[in-house]
Amino acid sequence: MRNNRIAALFAGASLALTAQTFSSLQKSAKPLVLKSQGSFYIGGEKSEQTRVELGGLGPGGHIAVNQMYVRYMEPHRNKSNVPVVMVHGATLTGKSWETTPDGRMGWDEYFVRKGHSVYVPDQVGRGRSGFNQANINNVRAGTAPATGLPNLLRFSDEVVWPNFRFGLTPGAPFSDEQFPVDAVDELSKQAVPDLSFGGVPTPNPTLKALSDLAGQLHGAVLMGHSQSGPFPLAAALLNPAVAKGLVLVEPGRCPANYTDEQIKTLATVPVLAVFGDHRDIATGISTRPSWQESFNTCQELIRRLKAAGGQAEMLNPPDQGIRGNSHMIMQDRNNLQIADLILKWIDQRVSKRKK
Amino acid sequence: MRNNRIAALFAGASLALTAQTFSSLQKSAKPLVLKSQGSFYIGGEKSEQTRVELGGLGPGGHIAVNQMYVRYMEPHRNKSNVPVVMVHGATLTGKSWETTPDGRMGWDEYFVRKGHSVYVPDQVGRGRSGFNQANINNVRAGTAPATGLPNLLRFSDEVVWPNFRFGLTPGAPFSDEQFPVDAVDELSKQAVPDLSFGGVPTPNPTLKALSDLAGQLHGAVLMGHSQSGPFPLAAALLNPAVAKGLVLVEPGRCPANYTDEQIKTLATVPVLAVFGDHRDIATGISTRPSWQESFNTCQELIRRLKAAGGQAEMLNPPDQGIRGNSHMIMQDRNNLQIADLILKWIDQRVSKRKK
Repeated sequence: MRNNRIAALFAGASLALTAQTFSSLQKSAKPLVLKSQGSFYIGGEKSEQTRVELGGLGPGGHIAVNQMYVRYMEPHRNKSNVPVVMVHGATLTGKSWETTPDGRMGWDEYFVRKGHSVYVPDQVGRGRSGFNQANINNVRAGTAPATGLPNLLRFSDEVVWPNFRFGLTPGAPFSDEQFPVDAVDELSKQAVPDLSFGGVPTPNPTLKALSDLAGQLHGAVLMGHSQSGPFPLAAALLNPAVAKGLVLVEPGRCPANYTDEQIKTLATVPVLAVFGDHRDIATGISTRPSWQESFNTCQELIRRLKAAGGQAEMLNPPDQGIRGNSHMIMQDRNNLQIADLILKWIDQRVSKRKK
Repeated sequence: MRNNRIAALFAGASLALTAQTFSSLQKSAKPLVLKSQGSFYIGGEKSEQTRVELGGLGPGGHIAVNQMYVRYMEPHRNKSNVPVVMVHGATLTGKSWETTPDGRMGWDEYFVRKGHSVYVPDQVGRGRSGFNQANINNVRAGTAPATGLPNLLRFSDEVVWPNFRFGLTPGAPFSDEQFPVDAVDELSKQAVPDLSFGGVPTPNPTLKALSDLAGQLHGAVLMGHSQSGPFPLAAALLNPAVAKGLVLVEPGRCPANYTDEQIKTLATVPVLAVFGDHRDIATGISTRPSWQESFNTCQELIRRLKAAGGQAEMLNPPDQGIRGNSHMIMQDRNNLQIADLILKWIDQRVSKRKK
C-alpha cells in the first residue's frame, strides 16, 4: 500500500504533493542546550552593476556577490571537540543536514548533541548565499545574448529516485531501502536551482570560503556531500593546517589527477570516504553508469594517500552488515547509526590524533 | 574616522569588502535551552518540466515548486506563549532576523529567550525556498523570448543607504543613527535576487503558506517587514481564526483598498504597525518620496480598524523618545529595546486578550 501511494505520485495524472505538517515532526525528549547559535557570511566581494543589471530599481551601484552564508550551533558543553562544517550537494542547500524529510533529527543537531559545534553553509550561488543576477537581467533587457544565461540545474523526481538509489524504478523502493521514501516529496521541496555549472565563478568561491571558515574556527572537520564531496579536499589544499579532517560523503568522484605533491599535502590530513548501498544500479534514466565508479575513484585516492603515509579510510556500511543506505545517507532512517560511525572516526582519527 | 572608512567604501576606487569574523560575533552569557529546533516546508506543488527546463540533466519530469522553507526554534520553557512567525522583506531572506550585521543577537533568538516559539521562513522564490527556473532555461535554449525572463531585483548599497534611512548620503550616517553602519557590508551580503515581481505566481504563494503555517501552529502572531509588511494582513484575510496578532514592521504600505467587509474581518485580530525614525527624508537616489507616506497609510488603516471596533496601534519609537531607528529596525543597535516593546504588545494585546 505504501508503494502504491508512492507509485501514484509518479503516475503523472495528479500533481498532488504529499505534505509534511509541523505536528508530524519528531521532537527529542531531551532539550538542546546551546552555548550559542546564529549565522554569518564568509567571503564575498563588491560588484559594480548597471541599473539594468540590478533589475531597474535606482541607478547603477554596488552589491555584494559570491559570499557564503553559514548557520551555526555551538553546544553548551563541547569539551573542546573539533567543529564540523557540513556542505550540501548539487541542487540542494544546507537544509540537507537539518530535519529529515520524514521529520527526524538531522545531522546538524545530532553532531551538536554529541558535543561538536556545527556550521552549515549554503554554497555560493544557492539558498541564502544568493547569486549574481546581472547576466540574467542583461539578457532580459536585450543587451546580452541568451546563450550567456547560466544553466539552472534541477533534478526531476524521476531522475532522483534511481540516481539517489531509492530503487530501480521511480515509486518502487528497494526492499531494504533506508531512505524514508514515503516522504520523498519533502526531499523534492529541498531542491533549488543550481548555478554551479556556468553561473558561479571559477574556481568556485565556496572552496576558499570553506578554507577561510576552517581558519576562523582554528581548525575544523570539513564534510562534503555528492557534488561537494571533493570540496573538503580542495579546501585542504588551500590551507592544510586548518583542515583537521575530511569527510567525503557519497562524492560524485574522488579526483584522480592530484600531483604527488598534492597527495603529500593531503596525506597530512585524516580522510574518510562514506558510501551507501546499492551502488551497482544503472538504469535507463540514470545520469551516470553507477555509483560504484565513484566508490572506486575514492578507493584509489585512499590507496594513494596511504602510500604517502596518510590516514585515509573507507566507511562502507555493507561491510558492517548495514544494508540499504541511499545517496541521501544523512536523511536515511538509520542516519544516526551512520552518524555514530563518523563521530567515532572523528574521535579516533582527529580528536585523539598524535600531532 | 568611522565615517571616513565608510565613505571610502563608496568611493568606487576599491571594491574591498569589510569582513565579519566568527570570533567577532557576540555570545550570550546564558545558554539557549531549546525544546526543539529544525526546519520544514509548507505548501508547494508539482510541476512537470521538459529536459531543457530542468537544465538538461536527464529527461523531462516532475519537480516541486512554490514551497516555503521554515526554520524554527521552540524554547524549553514556553509557558504556552503564542508562536511568532517572522517574514523578511524584498531582496532578503530569513537571515534578516538572525545574527545582526555587527554580530549581535537577532530577534529570532531573542523572542525564543523570551518564551516564544519562533518560525522564520524564506519567501517562496528566494533563499532555501528556491524558485521556478523553467523560464530562464527556456530562454537560454532559444525556445522562449528574453522578454519572458523574470526581473531579478537587487538594491545597490547606494540605494539602500538613504532608503533604509542610515543617512542622507551613502557613507554619511545620521548623528543618532541606530543601524550599525560600520557593518553595512554585512547587510549587503544578506541580499539575494528577488523574483517577487514577475517570477513568482499571483497571488504570491507565500501568503497562503503563512496562513497554513499559522493554522498548523494552532494560531500565531504573523510579523512582516518592508515588502512583506502587509503579508500578515493578507494571510489573516485567508484565515482570521489562526492569525492571533499582526505585526507590520516598516511596511512599504498599508493597503488602502480593503472593503468594509475585509476591515470588519481584520478588526477581529490585534494589529501593530512599527516604524523607525527619519521618515521624512527624500533624496535624489531614493526610490520613493518618503517613508512618512508609508506611515500615513498605516495610520489610516489603524483608523479604519479602530472605527470597526478593532484593536490596532502604531508603535512610533520617537514618541517614546527613542530616536534614530532605521528601516532595518530588527538589526539596529537598540533592536532588543524595540523587541521588548513588541513583546509587551504581544503580551498585553494577544496573550492576555479576552476572547
